[in-house]
Amino acid sequence: MIKEKNDIEEILNKTKSFLVVSHDMPDGDAIGSVLAVGKALENLNKDVILFIGDEIPDKYHFMYGSDKIITDGEISYIPPVLFVLDCGDLSRVKLKKEFFSKKTIVNIDHHLSNSYFGDINIIDINACATGEIIFKLFKELNIEIDLDIATAIYTAILTDTGSFRFSNSTPDSHLIAAELIKSGVKPEKISREIYEKRSIEGLKILSKALECLKVSKCGNYAWTFITKEMLAETGAVESDLEGIINYVREIKGVEIGILFKQVSDSVVKVGFRSNEWVDVRQLAVKFSGGGHKRASGCLIRGKLGDVINLVLKEVEKYF
Amino acid sequence: MIKEKNDIEEILNKTKSFLVVSHDMPDGDAIGSVLAVGKALENLNKDVILFIGDEIPDKYHFMYGSDKIITDGEISYIPPVLFVLDCGDLSRVKLKKEFFSKKTIVNIDHHLSNSYFGDINIIDINACATGEIIFKLFKELNIEIDLDIATAIYTAILTDTGSFRFSNSTPDSHLIAAELIKSGVKPEKISREIYEKRSIEGLKILSKALECLKVSKCGNYAWTFITKEMLAETGAVESDLEGIINYVREIKGVEIGILFKQVSDSVVKVGFRSNEWVDVRQLAVKFSGGGHKRASGCLIRGKLGDVINLVLKEVEKYF
Ligand SMILES: [Mn+2]
Ligand SMILES: [Mn+2]
Repeated sequence: MIKEKNDIEEILNKTKSFLVVSHDMPDGDAIGSVLAVGKALENLNKDVILFIGDEIPDKYHFMYGSDKIITDGEISYIPPVLFVLDCGDLSRVKLKKEFFSKKTIVNIDHHLSNSYFGDINIIDINACATGEIIFKLFKELNIEIDLDIATAIYTAILTDTGSFRFSNSTPDSHLIAAELIKSGVKPEKISREIYEKRSIEGLKILSKALECLKVSKCGNYAWTFITKEMLAETGAVESDLEGIINYVREIKGVEIGILFKQVSDSVVKVGFRSNEWVDVRQLAVKFSGGGHKRASGCLIRGKLGDVINLVLKEVEKYF
Repeated sequence: MIKEKNDIEEILNKTKSFLVVSHDMPDGDAIGSVLAVGKALENLNKDVILFIGDEIPDKYHFMYGSDKIITDGEISYIPPVLFVLDCGDLSRVKLKKEFFSKKTIVNIDHHLSNSYFGDINIIDINACATGEIIFKLFKELNIEIDLDIATAIYTAILTDTGSFRFSNSTPDSHLIAAELIKSGVKPEKISREIYEKRSIEGLKILSKALECLKVSKCGNYAWTFITKEMLAETGAVESDLEGIINYVREIKGVEIGILFKQVSDSVVKVGFRSNEWVDVRQLAVKFSGGGHKRASGCLIRGKLGDVINLVLKEVEKYF
């Protein structure tokens, strides 16, 4: 039972145009949620503008409507009602603040940190993905979940649960997946799109990063680095680096995995990941960075070798 | 409804000792199924011998009973009833044929090719894993699914569906996963055991294999190789090579991925994987190998370079 059901119903009845948005650097849940709500509104004969402040990665282009998402911030008309999806805070939406004033904001999210910025807030921190909340809302509102919507919601759940592997993979995640597959979703096709469109550049940079991989003497942490030269030699771009840090973290016995990426001759971006007990946010904060307990990062001025030494000295203290 | 339910009930009532076996080179479904049936029989106060003809990979050792599985073929007493799990044919069990004579064989499997070799055959080719059939059987027999059994069945389903990504990920796969998680299974813990215990040797050989990776001019196939020297330099063993061929197959646009592995100076093992339409079994058969439509292999006599040229010439014909 979603208690905001009646409010949403009222808004849907009296409104003709909607803006549906999510956070920049969008993931599968952000994009899937925007497309699911967008298609549902389209099916209800509404006028809909979809907005996400960064480019939609290639691997999500298979979803219906992905080509309709505006990503460059140029919106001439602002509809009276905004659906803001998968955003803990309005600052995560790359739109000027005046866009939000005098508008009705519907905030649907599953982040613990959500600031309840909406006029209507449907927040469920136990949902594995915003897509899960949207599924349940559509069911309550008797909104038809067609194959496009089902595919978008399945993608949201699949990606936010890490292919049903993370601790947020609850019975509900699976029950919804079962229903979506029953309604025609093809898991193998979606997984191919999302997990099996590797670029040759991505594999070459992975090769080089793994070549430089080192494990500490104690075996509790491991690290590798990516230099500007490695990027130039392989032709890899930022999105090709996604996931490399996980190889470091996933080594047997390792608690902290670290990736050093040379941004310029004097700046290094550092990523931290932990498995079970080290709060890597604290670690990043020491270098003026931030993030979460299990995933964090920071920017450090200095030569690559110096930065590595500096950071490893701090990491060593945990063991 | 499993129609063999009464037969199984009768056997359970009148028998004290059981042998539970699965195929050699065991996967998560083989091991999970053996452990699930083994623990259920143990809970019913039966005497149980578990047998699998090859070593249990490290990553499956977290399951209850994995240390009790006999893997060296030395069984002194043969119980009157054998459960043979996840085997299309009795030849897949590494036991002498006399072990099977005058015994009652219960054959539980999901392979299309199953030869119905049992006295009782519970075959469901629509099940994603043998573990799924065992779950349904236990439900019908009112056999309690304790946390050990739930963990074993979840592992069977997780691994045989490729983390719920393959086309055999049906509504039932997810409904059972939901029920198992409800009963206490921790997806994130099991996934860590199975997918996140990387060896440094495995990462180093992956690095080298990706360094040698090549994509054809047409972009439709890709290949790489592993030499004896690469294995020696990295210290990698056979189990470290698992999955490397998938990186080759998963390149955007590629239909066939090929891995050449130098067995000796004059023998090369070739693995083929395809994505959508090439029947790589046919390809392997041309070189006296075999396998499935999407995964096959063969052994070819010759120097590595010569074998690569020979095989690529044949592969090129498909495009
Ligand atoms: Mn999310
Ligand atoms: Mn199986």
